[in-house]
Amino acid sequence: MAKGRTEIASLGEFGLIDRLTSKFKKGNSSTICGVGDDAAVIEASRDKAVVVSTDSMLEGIDFDLTYFPPKHLGYKAVTKGISDVVAMNAVPEQITIALGISSKISVEFLDDFYEGVAFACKEAGVDLVGGDTSASLTGFVVNITAVGRAKKCDVSYRSGAKQHDLICITGDLGAPYMGLRLLERESRVLQGLENPQPQFEGHEYLLERYLKPRARYDMIESLRKEGIVPTSMIDITDGLASEVLQICKASKCGARIYLDHIPIAKQTMALADEMNIDPVIAALNGGEDYELLFTVPLDKRESIIKLGCIDIIGHITAENTGAYLVTPDGNDIALKAQGFTPKE
Amino acid sequence: MAKGRTEIASLGEFGLIDRLTSKFKKGNSSTICGVGDDAAVIEASRDKAVVVSTDSMLEGIDFDLTYFPPKHLGYKAVTKGISDVVAMNAVPEQITIALGISSKISVEFLDDFYEGVAFACKEAGVDLVGGDTSASLTGFVVNITAVGRAKKCDVSYRSGAKQHDLICITGDLGAPYMGLRLLERESRVLQGLENPQPQFEGHEYLLERYLKPRARYDMIESLRKEGIVPTSMIDITDGLASEVLQICKASKCGARIYLDHIPIAKQTMALADEMNIDPVIAALNGGEDYELLFTVPLDKRESIIKLGCIDIIGHITAENTGAYLVTPDGNDIALKAQGFTPKE
Repeated sequence: MAKGRTEIASLGEFGLIDRLTSKFKKGNSSTICGVGDDAAVIEASRDKAVVVSTDSMLEGIDFDLTYFPPKHLGYKAVTKGISDVVAMNAVPEQITIALGISSKISVEFLDDFYEGVAFACKEAGVDLVGGDTSASLTGFVVNITAVGRAKKCDVSYRSGAKQHDLICITGDLGAPYMGLRLLERESRVLQGLENPQPQFEGHEYLLERYLKPRARYDMIESLRKEGIVPTSMIDITDGLASEVLQICKASKCGARIYLDHIPIAKQTMALADEMNIDPVIAALNGGEDYELLFTVPLDKRESIIKLGCIDIIGHITAENTGAYLVTPDGNDIALKAQGFTPKE
Repeated sequence: MAKGRTEIASLGEFGLIDRLTSKFKKGNSSTICGVGDDAAVIEASRDKAVVVSTDSMLEGIDFDLTYFPPKHLGYKAVTKGISDVVAMNAVPEQITIALGISSKISVEFLDDFYEGVAFACKEAGVDLVGGDTSASLTGFVVNITAVGRAKKCDVSYRSGAKQHDLICITGDLGAPYMGLRLLERESRVLQGLENPQPQFEGHEYLLERYLKPRARYDMIESLRKEGIVPTSMIDITDGLASEVLQICKASKCGARIYLDHIPIAKQTMALADEMNIDPVIAALNGGEDYELLFTVPLDKRESIIKLGCIDIIGHITAENTGAYLVTPDGNDIALKAQGFTPKE
């Protein structure tokens, strides 16, 4: 494990960029020019729209390097970037990465980070086509821009949900949040110990969902094969409650989702129980799930069920009825959103 | 001047985004969907390639908020983003902005920042189509992604320079660097004074070039009208020396540039003289000029001269001859690049 530490200054900015990006080859036919020029050049086609999204991850806010391995961080950065493109029902094809690099970051750290980036890119069939490196006075800063394409008629906006549409969700929710809570707990408990032995047994699923989440680009293909174009779609980064409200706001509608229909994995349930956390809160407000929340017309019910791995958790209502969580005993609880506020 | 200070927490993330972006309307016909969804959607056309570039600006590294007004910072961020698109000989059409916001930043600061963004966007005919806001533990972080389009046959890469091509440059160099040095000097001199009166008279040009630089998108249109497609092009952000070397490396060629042909404004000369700085060093290594360095075949000489405001500063040579600055007394000085190294 004892890798050497190479200072970035020993390579210089241009040497560093060469080292980090030389392994990336363009794979998509739409990539005309990748890394190494002022900008990337991407082939367009008359019937396909280009979809662009940008996201940042800041040390101390979005990740803690004491328990976030750089390889996983690189992987997760790609996921975070392309998940927004996927949420438009578009196929992600290119990313750029801009880094702010503090003095504690070594060349070996960046090698690992880019190994994770490369792995995620390969899995998702995405090309790294550009970037920027800058010094950072304080923390490691990652910005990912993702580019994808879709037929214009296939793009799913947040604004297209209609009354009576079914509200659907991929995968399960709350696992990344519980993974984070576990990492925080072990980090607290083991602080100062010389040879820390964190207890992660049985929680591998939660850790993987937090540290190495995969964007649901697989669903874009599945939905296309079933001839389903979601009337609205969003990826779940701020928690289910926040995303349902975003769709309601953009689509000028209300929603009812049923608590006992929300998919929560048994590992999530188990750790939540152990840590005295309500697993529904983890699902509603935890965030970073990178699953897809989308709506389809009522007549697509059979097609959705046929796909498997998608849960129907509720339906769209009229705007004036508001957005509610319905509990098994029939109570209605108003959904509330959470956003960030600057930290001290 | 005593504006109130509104805390971001009082608006919440979504209230903040609404406030900052509600004034931006889409203006370009290629913008299908702008701010407010998971990603922006951009119209493509069969004969035009899409060009994408990303750049970061970090507090304490790329700007100092003690003397960088937020409105100018917003303006400059747009310039920095679109300058890379322009350097591909493409027309910038969209940008996204991702911000890392520390607790010292107020809503009023962000209002001013976005006023500068809006002003620059309007001038350049560019739409703000998306972004991301995140808390930042330490400094203000700005990431700009710019998107543009060009006919595939018109894209200028760094790699196309050929032996005997003329090396051309727009505008003049070194002024932003001297503007920065002036701001640093006044900030140092006036530190701790209750009612500081910085001495900026006669230096307005230098300050404007540093605080409010304009990208040379005007040149794209001018070159097109003259039927000139540069064989290679790059924007000057790290100083002339570094950019010449980038073109030489990508194009596998050498270069000779003539010291007395390098355009330096008289205001730059005057302050450099006053501060005992070699103005040629400011031009070669200062950076942040956002001017264009490009090459054209020898037979375009008349067209270039006709355009005015472009200087021919040298020519491309064979790769094995290296890249040199030729002084008026006939000495050859090897060009050296500078990049960033992480700061303590």
